[in-house]
Order: sequence, then C-alpha cells, then structure tokens
Amino acid sequence: MREALNSIIKDSDRIKTENIEKKYLSDNLGRKVGEAGALVFPISTEEVSKILKYAYENHIPVTPRGAGTNLVGSTVPRKKGIVLDLSLMNHIIEVDEETFTATVEPGVILEDFQHYVEERGLFYPPDPGEKRASIGGNISTNAGGMRAVKYGVTRDYVMGLEVVRADGSILTVGGKNRKDTSGLGIKDIIIGSEGTLAVITKCVLKLIPKPEESVSVLVGFDSLKSGIESVRRIIQANINPTAVEFIERKVVQLGEDYLKLEFPLAEAKAYLLLTFDGKKREIDSNIEQLHNVVGQSGAIAVLPLEDKEVAADVWRVRGVLVKAVEAVSEQEPLDIVVPINQIDTFVNFINELEKTNHIRMISFGHAGDGNVHLCIVRGNRTDEEWEKDLDDVLKIIYKKAYELGGLTSGEHGIGISKQKYFFRETPKANLELMNQIKDAFDERHILNDGISYVFS
Amino acid sequence: MREALNSIIKDSDRIKTENIEKKYLSDNLGRKVGEAGALVFPISTEEVSKILKYAYENHIPVTPRGAGTNLVGSTVPRKKGIVLDLSLMNHIIEVDEETFTATVEPGVILEDFQHYVEERGLFYPPDPGEKRASIGGNISTNAGGMRAVKYGVTRDYVMGLEVVRADGSILTVGGKNRKDTSGLGIKDIIIGSEGTLAVITKCVLKLIPKPEESVSVLVGFDSLKSGIESVRRIIQANINPTAVEFIERKVVQLGEDYLKLEFPLAEAKAYLLLTFDGKKREIDSNIEQLHNVVGQSGAIAVLPLEDKEVAADVWRVRGVLVKAVEAVSEQEPLDIVVPINQIDTFVNFINELEKTNHIRMISFGHAGDGNVHLCIVRGNRTDEEWEKDLDDVLKIIYKKAYELGGLTSGEHGIGISKQKYFFRETPKANLELMNQIKDAFDERHILNDGISYVFS
Repeated sequence: MREALNSIIKDSDRIKTENIEKKYLSDNLGRKVGEAGALVFPISTEEVSKILKYAYENHIPVTPRGAGTNLVGSTVPRKKGIVLDLSLMNHIIEVDEETFTATVEPGVILEDFQHYVEERGLFYPPDPGEKRASIGGNISTNAGGMRAVKYGVTRDYVMGLEVVRADGSILTVGGKNRKDTSGLGIKDIIIGSEGTLAVITKCVLKLIPKPEESVSVLVGFDSLKSGIESVRRIIQANINPTAVEFIERKVVQLGEDYLKLEFPLAEAKAYLLLTFDGKKREIDSNIEQLHNVVGQSGAIAVLPLEDKEVAADVWRVRGVLVKAVEAVSEQEPLDIVVPINQIDTFVNFINELEKTNHIRMISFGHAGDGNVHLCIVRGNRTDEEWEKDLDDVLKIIYKKAYELGGLTSGEHGIGISKQKYFFRETPKANLELMNQIKDAFDERHILNDGISYVFS
Repeated sequence: MREALNSIIKDSDRIKTENIEKKYLSDNLGRKVGEAGALVFPISTEEVSKILKYAYENHIPVTPRGAGTNLVGSTVPRKKGIVLDLSLMNHIIEVDEETFTATVEPGVILEDFQHYVEERGLFYPPDPGEKRASIGGNISTNAGGMRAVKYGVTRDYVMGLEVVRADGSILTVGGKNRKDTSGLGIKDIIIGSEGTLAVITKCVLKLIPKPEESVSVLVGFDSLKSGIESVRRIIQANINPTAVEFIERKVVQLGEDYLKLEFPLAEAKAYLLLTFDGKKREIDSNIEQLHNVVGQSGAIAVLPLEDKEVAADVWRVRGVLVKAVEAVSEQEPLDIVVPINQIDTFVNFINELEKTNHIRMISFGHAGDGNVHLCIVRGNRTDEEWEKDLDDVLKIIYKKAYELGGLTSGEHGIGISKQKYFFRETPKANLELMNQIKDAFDERHILNDGISYVFS
C-alpha cells in the first residue's frame, strides 16, 4: 500500500503507515479506537480522487475525517484501510460578496471561517457547539446548533459541493444558484451522510449580511414545564429569537462548580436562554414583547444580559456543560430530537427514569427546535455494569423518543455508537432503501466502512 | 388491466380505461399529449400502494400527477401505462399549532392550503406563481416563487413525507422534527425528483406565524442594469425583502394591454417590484432604508403601493405576464436560474440575441434569487421554422446560462421539454449517478417513465 500511495502523494510526510497516532483512529471521545493500514493527508481534489480510485480498485476501506470532533464514532476505521484526513485542505478559496457565497475546502475550521466572514461584514449562521469542527464535518452531519431556531441548519447553507465518489470520479453538484430543480438532488442526500456516500472536497456556502447587534436574555422559571410551555408562545409571538436554549437549575450548578462562577437568577428551577439579533430597534421591541409573553407562562424573572461580561459567563456555562459532566464522570452523550411540543414530556420522562433506574441523567439543549442533549452519567460503575445499565436505559429512552415522534439524532449523526438503537427503531423499509442508495453511490462499500453497517 | 384495477379500486367511477380526456395525458400547456391504458383516482395510501405493486409486478409504467399545472411535460405518459391522478387525495389532515406543522394529502391545492392556514394566524411561505398547483406537485418540483428571497423554497418547508415506492412499499421519512441527522436524507432526494423516485401520499409541512403586515413597493429605473445592480445593495442593506421581482418596461406593456389597465411610473425603462412583510415598524424602517439604497443606484422613483387597489393592479400585471405573452403568440417558457450577480449579464445577452436572431424574447422574474422567466415567442413561424429556430436559440441560451454558472431550471423542473438541453449541459458523471439513484429507488423504471429517459 505504501508504494501505491507514494506514487500518488509525492511528499512522504503526508503518508503514515506505521505508528499511527490514536487520535486518527478515533473520534473526540476516544473510547472506540480502530485500525488503519495508512493515514494520508491529501492537499488537492486530484490526490483524493487518485487515492479513492486506488482504494476502490483494491477493495480497501477508506475513512474520511475532518477535525475529528465527532462524538459518535463516525471516524473510527473498522478494518486496516486508509484514513483520509482532509485537515490540510483548509483554504478559504473565495468570499464572493456579489452572490453572498463563500467557497472553501472541507478542512476549514468552523470558527476560523465564521471570524473570516464576519470581518467582512458577512455571517455564516450555522453554529454547532463544537467550534473547532471542520466545515466538511459539519456538512457530513448536517450540524445544527444554537442558531437553528431562526436560521436553520447546515443543510440550509450548502449551495454547492465538489465531491469525489468511491471510485474516484469527481462531481460538482449545485453551485452559486439560489434555486435548483435541475435533476435529482444529489447534493441534498450527500449532506448528512456521514462520509458514507462521497468525500467532500469543496463547499459553496451561503452567507448573509452580519446582523448589526446581538443581545441575550436569561429567563428564570419555577419549573422546566413552565419554561418549555412558554417556548410555543415565544414562537407564536413572532419575535424571532436566534436561539432558545433550556437548562435546568441542577444542570447549571454543574457548570458553576466547574467554572467557579455564579450564574444569575439562582432562585429559578429552570432557565430559558435566548438570543435576539438584528437591528437595535427590532431587538428592543422583540425583548419588550418577550416580557409580556413569558409573563403569561409564570416566568419569575427576565434578565437581558446587557453587561457583556455577564453574558459571556452565562454562555460559558451553557458551553461547558458536557465538559462539566465529564469532569465528574464518563458519560454517554445523546442528541435526540423530538417535536417541539414534546420536550417537556420527554425531559420529565427522563427525570422519572433517573429516579427509577438509579442512573444519573443530565439534559439541556435547544428548546426552540426540540433537540435535547442528554448525558447519561457512568458514575462509579464497573465496565460490565456500565455496559449493561447504559444499554438498558438507552433502549427505553430511544423507544420513548420514537413514541413521541422523535428521532435518534438531531445533529451528531449515527456513527457507530448509535447504530444499534437507530437500527431498532427505524423501519426495515427505510433501512433497505438507505442500503440501496449506498450501493448506488459506492457499490463496494469502501467509504466509511466503520459505519456502513448502519445500512445492512 | 381493467380487471386488476377493479379489484383494487372498488368504485368503478374512479377508473377510466376508455376515452381518457386529453388533459390527463398532458401538462398545463397541452402541447405534448401522451397515451395511457388507464386513468385512476386513488383515495388512500393503500390504494396507491396496491396499484404500484400491481404495476411493478407487471412492468407497467405509472405517471403520477397532481393538478397538472406543470409547464415542462412532467405529466405526459409515454407508454400505454397508468396515469395515477392524486387530486382526490386532497384533505388537510391536521394543522398542529403546537409544532407549527400541517399534515396534508398531496392533492391539496396550494391556494386553498394557504388560505386555510392564514385563517388560523399561520403562514405557508412557498408561493409559486401557479396558485392552483397541488402541494404534491410543488414538492415534486421543489417549487420556488416570489417569496423565496426571504423565506426559501418548498424544500425548506417539507419536514416529513409518506411515500410509496415503485414496488408498492410504503415509507415514512422525516416527521415533525426540526433537526434530523438520523440516516440518509431520503426525503431530501425525493423533493424535486418530479415523480421519478416515489409517489408522495402525505406531506408534513412547516408553518410560521403569519406576518402582521405586507407592503409592496415599486421602484422605477432608467435601465435594467441599474435596477439589477441595486439588488445586491438591497440584500447587503439587510432590509429583508420578501420578494424582489424585476420587469422591463417593454414587458409591462404587454400586461397593460392584456389587462387594459395602467401600470404606475410609465416613464421608467425597468422596474423592481418588492414586498416587505413583518411588523409595521420594521416594514416602515426597511422601506425608509430602501429609499437610500436605490437612490444610490440611480432609481428614478420609489412608490410604496399603500393603496390596496393600485398594489393589486401592479401584482395582477406581474401575475399575468405569461398569459399576456401567450395571448399574442405561442411561446416556450424557460425558468433558467443564474447566480444573482449574473442576472443583468444574462438578460442583456438575451436582449442582444433577440436582435441578432430575430426571435422575440421576453424576460422577467425573481431578481432576488436569480431565477429568470424567459418566454421565447413563436410569432407567425410555421411548425418547421419554429422547431428549428427555437432549438437554435435554446442551445445558445442554455450554453450561456451554464457559462455564467447557472442551471436549466430554478423551479419548473426538467420534465420532457428541457431534457435535451439539460442533458447537453450536465456532466456525464452527474447523469450517471442520477441514473444509479433512479435504479436504487425503482429498478424497473416504471415511475414517470415519461421523463425517466432524463437518466439514461
């Protein structure tokens, strides 16, 4: 394999066939570690194409990866194939202010890209929690994040892609056009496909003008139920929040302990944390209306976070929740999505389950779009106990989520970690069709073989 | 065939095997007329499933249709198969105010649905020109329309689908969730697939709260170029128009003659027609800013259409343009899409081509999203002359559109009318993959065989 790869990639520093670091064989959690015969760092579409052609001809599995920030094992190679690391393809090729688009390579880091366009008065709305993820990775998981309530998810900002198919052929789908009914939506099925259909080598992204201002507001409630109930009123009132996050007091406390700081409105049992962006006048009028709306749902306090430092602290607590949980114990992160009117039913169910099953569970997330981040905490369980207890509650939790009309994942993807539960809850007819689509794109199933068994 | 269909559909009035009316064998233009062995009107998913199972087993082509308002021959059966008319599946099953969704059957008429939800304080943003189209048809062409600038296209409002595959199996994809990274995006590739992948039998649509107000503004320019140039400034100014339409004076005149009414600002050479919706205060402030922005592009007049009757007249002219052209002569309607900064280059090219090729061409459309409606006017050409001259200019026009980064269709679809040009301009690798995806969904190619040769 080394020889073949040498003939494609002249620079031998960009090929590793021995002592491959563990981080290239795993995801952000590092719990599952795979095996690989080679790790390569292509720098061009042509190199990607040649590597895939070689791999396809020789039935060698290929695992593409961006920044490796995923949480579900979607970058864990399962066989001794090639890990295709796209992190050196990290150039912002163009920002086109006339069409409000940017063209970037897949390895560009989200945060870097956001700053780059914002300096130019533009804005890239998708804003998943993990800012060091790559754009290619964001597209592969159709990443969502906080601002989805107002702006939608990554899918809504992908206008065009250049991709390389498993057999090495290069395709351009979409472009800089705002509408497209010209043949089948190839681009649309590649988005969110977790590297199983094709390797993304170029991305045309939609930008919008940067909002003039952004203000966060913290609202305290005496129960999660009244907090969640007010979400519908907020949406109905048409006051257009950018983000609507919910956190229970008990969860906030973990963040406070971890960061050693105090969160405002300590007397509340649950919070909604909202952001409004746009023109100053619009924001003011929307926040004014927010007061009325949440007042009707029994909010105990409404606190616009005009002090930048207080606002930053509040968002730091929100941002650090997963890490704060991990500091206490290993945990299994879920990102179940349910219809927005089912969040309180679902979270109450989780709170009950926590009591009956004696396993700690921490939930918070995106109230505006029904995406619940749920951390199942290991505590001091042995490996065996953890495996059994976790599996027991996961079966119950996913079953309930689907009963409520929900789905396995809102933004993390299925990967290898959730395959078992996704498989249990998804109708056979759907899985069969996914498998047929996989065959159409990649007959030899070489691409992201780690998770290709999702489709079997 | 009659016997088999009788065993599926008990009510014989819903099966026709003789004297099938021409309108069921054609599209809205009625130029191309196909043949069918049977026309059926199912009223349930189960009936659709049984019909498809029978057709699949017997290799009988099936052409699904909604309201038949398409302009590209996508409902013209090519062989003596079954026309599957979904117009009796026209029930609004549910409007769920808690999740801001509606669940409807595919035969529901767009206009009826819009009124229904608006009466309940809700809003369905997609607004293609043809209001008597069916929702299923809108999804099958990913219909766009005027309000796409602010709200996006049909794709952005389809949250879930129930579909029947060619072999009769029934699938539910998506649902009432706002985020979804749970397996391959089957829903996303069915949207816009013109009935070639599956038959839509139920649609879960996203709604938003109804905007409080809506105001249109007509802006006159001394040239199309300055009008189009100001579009970028309008978008950059973040004043969030709902619609930005462009029309040249010479085109307006056709509408005036047809409707026997006067359009304001007769001294202008070109117009932008904008709409703003939202709260009164926001609209006022945005229109105020519009004055400044278009002033810098040399607008000769800005006229807010506060008088409801004047506003209605102006939109009637915009709405009647295709019919006004048709009253003069047969025409070929195109809906090419180009990047928004290429509209003036493209329209100027068309105006030049009109002179050099001595064929009348009329263009207008959605300046905010680059979707140009171009009518090629037959005039008094004989059949032979028309066929040749039309083909000559179409080759030139589509070539130019693709050179500018554009695509064949922004919202009408490919159907049979545009297949030839779409095929010429689309890379083989893309067509091959479309064909492979078609095979994955419908190995026997029974679904919408009329246009399945797009994929060959």
